[in-house]
Amino acid sequence: MPDLQPWSRLRMGVDYYPEHWDVSMWEEDALLMKRTGVKIVRLAEFAWSRLEPAEGQFDFTWLDQAVDLFHHHDIGVVLGTPTNTPPRWLTDSCPDVLPITASGQPVHAGVRGHRCFNSPSMRTYASRIVHRLAEHYAGHPAVEGWQIDNEYWLLECHCTACNERFREWVKAKYETLDEVNRSWGTVVWSGEFNDWTQITTPLGGSPFQNPSYLLDYYRFQSASAAQFQQEQIALIRKLAPEHYITHNFHSYPQKLDLHQIGEELDFASFDYYPNTSPDKTSTGPYSGALSLDLTRGIKQRGFWIMEQLSGPPGCWFPMWRTPQPGFIRAFAWQTIARGADTVVHFRWRSALQGAEQYWHGLIDHSNVPGRRFEEFTQLCEEVNKAAANLSGTTVQSEAAILYASDQLLSMGIQKQSEGLDYYENIKQWHKALTKLGIGVDVIHTDAQLDSYKLVIAPHLYLMDEALAERLESYAASGGTVILTTRSGVKQMNNICHMEQLPALLSRCAGVTVSEYDPIGKDAHIITTGDASYACSQWNDLLVPQTAEPIAWYNDDFYCGTPAVTRNRFGEGTVYYTGTQPEEAYLIRLLREAASVAGLSCFDKELPEGVQLTVRTGEQASYLFVLNLSREEAVVELEAAYPSLLTGEVSGRELTLPPYGVEILELPREHA
Amino acid sequence: MPDLQPWSRLRMGVDYYPEHWDVSMWEEDALLMKRTGVKIVRLAEFAWSRLEPAEGQFDFTWLDQAVDLFHHHDIGVVLGTPTNTPPRWLTDSCPDVLPITASGQPVHAGVRGHRCFNSPSMRTYASRIVHRLAEHYAGHPAVEGWQIDNEYWLLECHCTACNERFREWVKAKYETLDEVNRSWGTVVWSGEFNDWTQITTPLGGSPFQNPSYLLDYYRFQSASAAQFQQEQIALIRKLAPEHYITHNFHSYPQKLDLHQIGEELDFASFDYYPNTSPDKTSTGPYSGALSLDLTRGIKQRGFWIMEQLSGPPGCWFPMWRTPQPGFIRAFAWQTIARGADTVVHFRWRSALQGAEQYWHGLIDHSNVPGRRFEEFTQLCEEVNKAAANLSGTTVQSEAAILYASDQLLSMGIQKQSEGLDYYENIKQWHKALTKLGIGVDVIHTDAQLDSYKLVIAPHLYLMDEALAERLESYAASGGTVILTTRSGVKQMNNICHMEQLPALLSRCAGVTVSEYDPIGKDAHIITTGDASYACSQWNDLLVPQTAEPIAWYNDDFYCGTPAVTRNRFGEGTVYYTGTQPEEAYLIRLLREAASVAGLSCFDKELPEGVQLTVRTGEQASYLFVLNLSREEAVVELEAAYPSLLTGEVSGRELTLPPYGVEILELPREHA
Amino acid sequence: MPDLQPWSRLRMGVDYYPEHWDVSMWEEDALLMKRTGVKIVRLAEFAWSRLEPAEGQFDFTWLDQAVDLFHHHDIGVVLGTPTNTPPRWLTDSCPDVLPITASGQPVHAGVRGHRCFNSPSMRTYASRIVHRLAEHYAGHPAVEGWQIDNEYWLLECHCTACNERFREWVKAKYETLDEVNRSWGTVVWSGEFNDWTQITTPLGGSPFQNPSYLLDYYRFQSASAAQFQQEQIALIRKLAPEHYITHNFHSYPQKLDLHQIGEELDFASFDYYPNTSPDKTSTGPYSGALSLDLTRGIKQRGFWIMEQLSGPPGCWFPMWRTPQPGFIRAFAWQTIARGADTVVHFRWRSALQGAEQYWHGLIDHSNVPGRRFEEFTQLCEEVNKAAANLSGTTVQSEAAILYASDQLLSMGIQKQSEGLDYYENIKQWHKALTKLGIGVDVIHTDAQLDSYKLVIAPHLYLMDEALAERLESYAASGGTVILTTRSGVKQMNNICHMEQLPALLSRCAGVTVSEYDPIGKDAHIITTGDASYACSQWNDLLVPQTAEPIAWYNDDFYCGTPAVTRNRFGEGTVYYTGTQPEEAYLIRLLREAASVAGLSCFDKELPEGVQLTVRTGEQASYLFVLNLSREEAVVELEAAYPSLLTGEVSGRELTLPPYGVEILELPREHA
Repeated sequence: MPDLQPWSRLRMGVDYYPEHWDVSMWEEDALLMKRTGVKIVRLAEFAWSRLEPAEGQFDFTWLDQAVDLFHHHDIGVVLGTPTNTPPRWLTDSCPDVLPITASGQPVHAGVRGHRCFNSPSMRTYASRIVHRLAEHYAGHPAVEGWQIDNEYWLLECHCTACNERFREWVKAKYETLDEVNRSWGTVVWSGEFNDWTQITTPLGGSPFQNPSYLLDYYRFQSASAAQFQQEQIALIRKLAPEHYITHNFHSYPQKLDLHQIGEELDFASFDYYPNTSPDKTSTGPYSGALSLDLTRGIKQRGFWIMEQLSGPPGCWFPMWRTPQPGFIRAFAWQTIARGADTVVHFRWRSALQGAEQYWHGLIDHSNVPGRRFEEFTQLCEEVNKAAANLSGTTVQSEAAILYASDQLLSMGIQKQSEGLDYYENIKQWHKALTKLGIGVDVIHTDAQLDSYKLVIAPHLYLMDEALAERLESYAASGGTVILTTRSGVKQMNNICHMEQLPALLSRCAGVTVSEYDPIGKDAHIITTGDASYACSQWNDLLVPQTAEPIAWYNDDFYCGTPAVTRNRFGEGTVYYTGTQPEEAYLIRLLREAASVAGLSCFDKELPEGVQLTVRTGEQASYLFVLNLSREEAVVELEAAYPSLLTGEVSGRELTLPPYGVEILELPREHA
Repeated sequence: MPDLQPWSRLRMGVDYYPEHWDVSMWEEDALLMKRTGVKIVRLAEFAWSRLEPAEGQFDFTWLDQAVDLFHHHDIGVVLGTPTNTPPRWLTDSCPDVLPITASGQPVHAGVRGHRCFNSPSMRTYASRIVHRLAEHYAGHPAVEGWQIDNEYWLLECHCTACNERFREWVKAKYETLDEVNRSWGTVVWSGEFNDWTQITTPLGGSPFQNPSYLLDYYRFQSASAAQFQQEQIALIRKLAPEHYITHNFHSYPQKLDLHQIGEELDFASFDYYPNTSPDKTSTGPYSGALSLDLTRGIKQRGFWIMEQLSGPPGCWFPMWRTPQPGFIRAFAWQTIARGADTVVHFRWRSALQGAEQYWHGLIDHSNVPGRRFEEFTQLCEEVNKAAANLSGTTVQSEAAILYASDQLLSMGIQKQSEGLDYYENIKQWHKALTKLGIGVDVIHTDAQLDSYKLVIAPHLYLMDEALAERLESYAASGGTVILTTRSGVKQMNNICHMEQLPALLSRCAGVTVSEYDPIGKDAHIITTGDASYACSQWNDLLVPQTAEPIAWYNDDFYCGTPAVTRNRFGEGTVYYTGTQPEEAYLIRLLREAASVAGLSCFDKELPEGVQLTVRTGEQASYLFVLNLSREEAVVELEAAYPSLLTGEVSGRELTLPPYGVEILELPREHA
Repeated sequence: MPDLQPWSRLRMGVDYYPEHWDVSMWEEDALLMKRTGVKIVRLAEFAWSRLEPAEGQFDFTWLDQAVDLFHHHDIGVVLGTPTNTPPRWLTDSCPDVLPITASGQPVHAGVRGHRCFNSPSMRTYASRIVHRLAEHYAGHPAVEGWQIDNEYWLLECHCTACNERFREWVKAKYETLDEVNRSWGTVVWSGEFNDWTQITTPLGGSPFQNPSYLLDYYRFQSASAAQFQQEQIALIRKLAPEHYITHNFHSYPQKLDLHQIGEELDFASFDYYPNTSPDKTSTGPYSGALSLDLTRGIKQRGFWIMEQLSGPPGCWFPMWRTPQPGFIRAFAWQTIARGADTVVHFRWRSALQGAEQYWHGLIDHSNVPGRRFEEFTQLCEEVNKAAANLSGTTVQSEAAILYASDQLLSMGIQKQSEGLDYYENIKQWHKALTKLGIGVDVIHTDAQLDSYKLVIAPHLYLMDEALAERLESYAASGGTVILTTRSGVKQMNNICHMEQLPALLSRCAGVTVSEYDPIGKDAHIITTGDASYACSQWNDLLVPQTAEPIAWYNDDFYCGTPAVTRNRFGEGTVYYTGTQPEEAYLIRLLREAASVAGLSCFDKELPEGVQLTVRTGEQASYLFVLNLSREEAVVELEAAYPSLLTGEVSGRELTLPPYGVEILELPREHA
């Protein structure tokens, strides 16, 4: 693997905070890490007050000592820039650092993130500390790369700087107030602006706002985060050009534009905390699978887990259940199975102090390694052994789900019907694909589609001619597309199209919506002729133009009206689902679409909790078979394959214990 | 009908916002309205930023063009004064326009109503725009009248002006601080005022306040709305004396004093959005019936629907279900059946932009008229055809329910028991009357009672000698009165009477309450001797003085104690219900009371969702038989009558399809 | 009883507000009190605006008149200092009196308590009015003592004074910022202070905070209340040295440190409002029993009820049910049975005005005494008759539960698992003891343990060496201790011990926790070998060192792991319960522990709602047998005893009607 990027090697890591522990403990910690098989540590992300204890007084000696120590033990270092937690002296002397709520209250220090992306002071001081750090560690042999800040979320800040920058952003986008008024539809309710100073952040008081304005405000805040990050990236690229740069995303869905944030990163990272509760086993692993696929889609390449669950989380909520035996190992393998190259566990040892004492690490407060640490040790051994084979392999999918934060935001601004949720519906499609064993990329609506056989495009609510034409051209050239309700509803400025739905997509879908019924949580039925299925949320009454109906409503005043259609478009096929059917129908429809698209899938669904994915490399392909459930599971494979973990050849009927993991080497033709 | 007021003709209308649409669409829209049978449009209510784009720069040309267009098509125009939505230049240059919350935060523009009724700037600029509009349109042949502002609600504003005016209002009412202290009972908890400046709006921090003070603060805010409105009315009366003036009330119950607001109006209007959900069919049409009867009661005459449901509402909440076939027509007829003379549908076409995009109009965003528009077309035809007969007819009732915002407010300030709600209990009484086919007026407690045979007076919680004497005198002269729990509890200043309940009403009810048990949602039973009924909320233990018990508690330590009594008082009869019984008992009691009062009613209850009302004119009377449900319904009539809609004679047994409507001409003796 | 303190005589009293009533009613009220057997009234607690109507203008004439009147009728007087309700002139001229929320909003007057304990103006004016009152009434023969302020709760004030005093408090406690940073663990997330001015109250914005800092902020606010009170106590001690001083605590659990507040009081008082709802009968009387035992534990002596339920409460919530016949009497006797010496009923008559109109008194608004007043009359007669025997007797227990507000606060700052609540779990232990008829003191963790045979120490979450050693020494000398989950977790500064749990307590418990599972509301099972029991909240996996297991988990991956252990330690025994078992197991365990400790208890549990306690004096002991339920109950006694109420000798099998009360004189050997 000569041209493998430094970040693409398969490795295990831990998050470690030397500043939280007496210096006398460091050596023993580092030694145990080394023995356990840890290859990388993340350091320093929140340590601003130790790196710059007072304004302009920098002290990197302690970090030098820690980095040297890890270097000594052959453990690589990723440094976090500490900008998520400005220190007291900074918020004290420059209160403009703090975000301001809609009612004008500062967001004081507490649970991190007490910094406005647009604050001039924040920008100044953040650049200075990052400059110093990059300069200092550029040449250190242990330091490989950087994590910028920590777990961004979309701030809704209303400080003076945010107001000024928002005004500039709007001016840059629209140039004239007339264009602003037109694009936001401000004529409604006398909201027209006749002076630039009238443009402000949503200042509060009214619970609802003009949706076009609000969408732009969110876009602006997302752009602010990206710009804030870019200042740091530019410094590091200049001072430490050999280092890689990432950011640790978390908790999807995020209002933030992940793809915009990801643009200048080398790779994306994700902080992964799958739910440990037995009540959540059925949904937890599927929701997690989507998170991982979505993270892989940010850069459309391998990614890192920068924080991986190591024990019961807690603190902001009552503690979760402790992970069952096998849970920590299985969910770490799940991340690798879906494209993670490095898995960093959070955290080495549970914090004794501060607000995160019960976000448990691998080792408990007592510093006595226990059951969870043993499991981590086994995991490290396995990963390190498999690294030779798996490093350089990647996940390659023939199906894609389209996703964009713009769609998420606009559908969130005005709730369509009770229960209709953009991201939750994507979860439903993703789970149905997963149960059929179909690997899927989750990619931005702007991404290239050519390499896919099947594209599922849930709720393309905002739609312009360019996007419509890309889908048309994809379908015309032989692609298979699945469209859903609430597609083509609006222009990119969140103003409705004056056209029968799915508006611009009617051309390729060959269908129009004569009217719709927002059924919400009311129970309704569709029929395919041979079987009936429950549906909910929304019913579009369809009028096929060139399409043929393949399912019909079976109740209410529109009984007999088409509910799902299929349209031959050029060389391809476009499905339109006018309602949100239950999982059984999604699976049926996907199985048909997969067949149309020439994509193989499992005849029977996989057992609940079982997930299959493939990593493919130049030499070989590896099939990951994971049982992410508390029950034993049996999977019928096409053939028997040798196990990368045990070296033995599996049976065709593979029996996996609870949280069982198998990795099989596929014969050449699969690669 | 020579002396019919211009607003009393039966007509169909729509709400139209020319400023939301390209001018090229206006002509086609107006033409389609005309063809559909629309006779009236409401224009301009929120269009301030178009009528006065910058301070003092007025531009009525676009509205002239629209008004001329409608005039050309023989469609009358009601203009809304645009004061609900002050434009940006106004809130920007005069921030005192914005209401202020208890915590001192301005309520910025968003979902309308961002204006304090007492703001000096608001008063000045509102008067100026209304003056200009009235002056300009006074003589236009298409313009008939005005809607002042839009959908008032009781503001709880705490701006400087509200504080000053509240202080003046209190001073005017009580003259001395001693009297304020006495009337509010401020001695409790050292709340005594010794300087007028100490009197403020309820400034926040404490979740609860002195109830006498709070009631007066609400009264003041209601008076502020009335005064705000009166400034506009006075201008229009002077400049356009031929025009009628109304306001569109909405969403009952409102804390606002509807009768005070209604005082200077020519007639009341209501914005009517009956619930489209199948789960709400049982309550929806009854709740709506009360809203309509209450609106009719504001001026005790015919009223308008200024906004009538035309499709699924949404935006502030997930969209509702689409109206079933027949729903739009049936609920429009319901408003006419209960006294609406003009029904204006909201809105012609769904908005493409702004915060109300999913409050659907008759025509969808696509501008392709569909099923709902077809139904509206049929409705217009029917109404226009029936107008000759129905114009000038009115609803005349022999039963009345008393209602006052004072009662609503004071019972809301201190919750009596879990589930005991003033307005919800009025709904129960109103529904029971409706199921018996008894038409009922909902009138203010101060209204004349002489014309009624039966008066239901739920929860006359605030009571003074004058009101007690009016009820006594009504009963003494032969009237039948039904009183309930929580009557006579307090003086008008929200301070308790020191007397056994029902205090001043004990004289006519012939009963006292020895003690009470606030049972809330606990299940209890009353018995009439021959049957048992559930009761809830509150149990008064009754001691008959001159009354006779007609129902008794059947459990708990007061088993056997009277629960309901009947008292002969002069020529009349007074019932006292010491608990809130289930509907079956309310129907039983009302049937008895109706018989005592000499009022006819249905022997059996009407089927669920079926409502009967009569409009009476000089020439004839018309019986409306509506099936506001999803199920077919059969109604047994006294005789067969000719149908105004079809011209055919109905059978005595009338079968109505779901959402079926029948209008029957009654023989002369019914008139 | 020569050396009986004036406050230790058994008496009945009422709360009376002469200033709320026309002076013409006072005489009749006082006369009726006297006839009813009332011996004490509380006056004036909120009457500041009447005692000092304007700044510096004092007027005590009306209170003199009232006090003289009660003196004339041989009724003693307790005066409340009126500092809970600063008058308008004070909050108006000195707004610093008002507490300030985290977002900087003043808490204006409303439902009382609108005063910051640290406000300089408040301190000044409070001292002045208290000084005047103490001076004036020191020598009045009717005035016996004082209640300071009213029903403190822990304020979370953020005013300038609170910020300054907090800074001083922190400085006094830690001396250096280094020590602050170390003790609060501020290194986490760059929260380190490098200037004293950076130390503020938690200013808001972030929903969570550093738990060490927060705990100290709460301790500071508790200390502020104590200091505020101490200024008043010092004045009264100086000016009226013969008078006793108390404060009326309420609504447990309180974040406030009750023991710190209680330090300088002569005795504690409690405002007792047992729930009247039939749904709450099962929990109400047990929760109340704990409140009373906890109040007795504040000073470890007899206490007062300063407000006792007299009718349905309401106002801040919908009114409760009216008390059943017998309820008022039985719950008053419950307070005496658990150590109350004086029971003051709130209030003589329901208020006609102000925000508390529906917090019903003994007499209704009508001023017609009814059923509840009759019951109170009977109660007064009984108490006055029994006083000769009961005065001077006290409650003496052989078992104790440890409680401290520090533990409550720290466990509240970071929720451990769903359903795990410090105070609710104490309730479970207390109820199990009560069902076994074991009298128990609820005492501070710092109290002497020597006199107890059995100590239950739920959740000693914060633990230092001193406390661990006291428990060890108690056990070593023969005591029996029950420990639970979440013990020994943290140092007193809310930072975790780096040691296997229960950390310092492992020595005496002879067990360590290898890991834990925060099971929350998930259902789990433990087994004792012969029986199984449900458990919830938390599972510690135990590794006995010297202890022997007595119950084991019976499911999940740790099936068979010890769940409860017993350890012989010196002369004593230490139990450790690693989970929260259902009541049946608590009773089983307590029965075993009682037997080990040599403490007698009931073989079978007492019927639901039945409570037994003993008051012991020099002459005799009295067994209270109360049925605090709506069902008749039978209790099997050891022998037959003479009744103090009836003079007759009871059977061994005692049958109590609903809310029945019996007081039996025990033979000498029981004393």
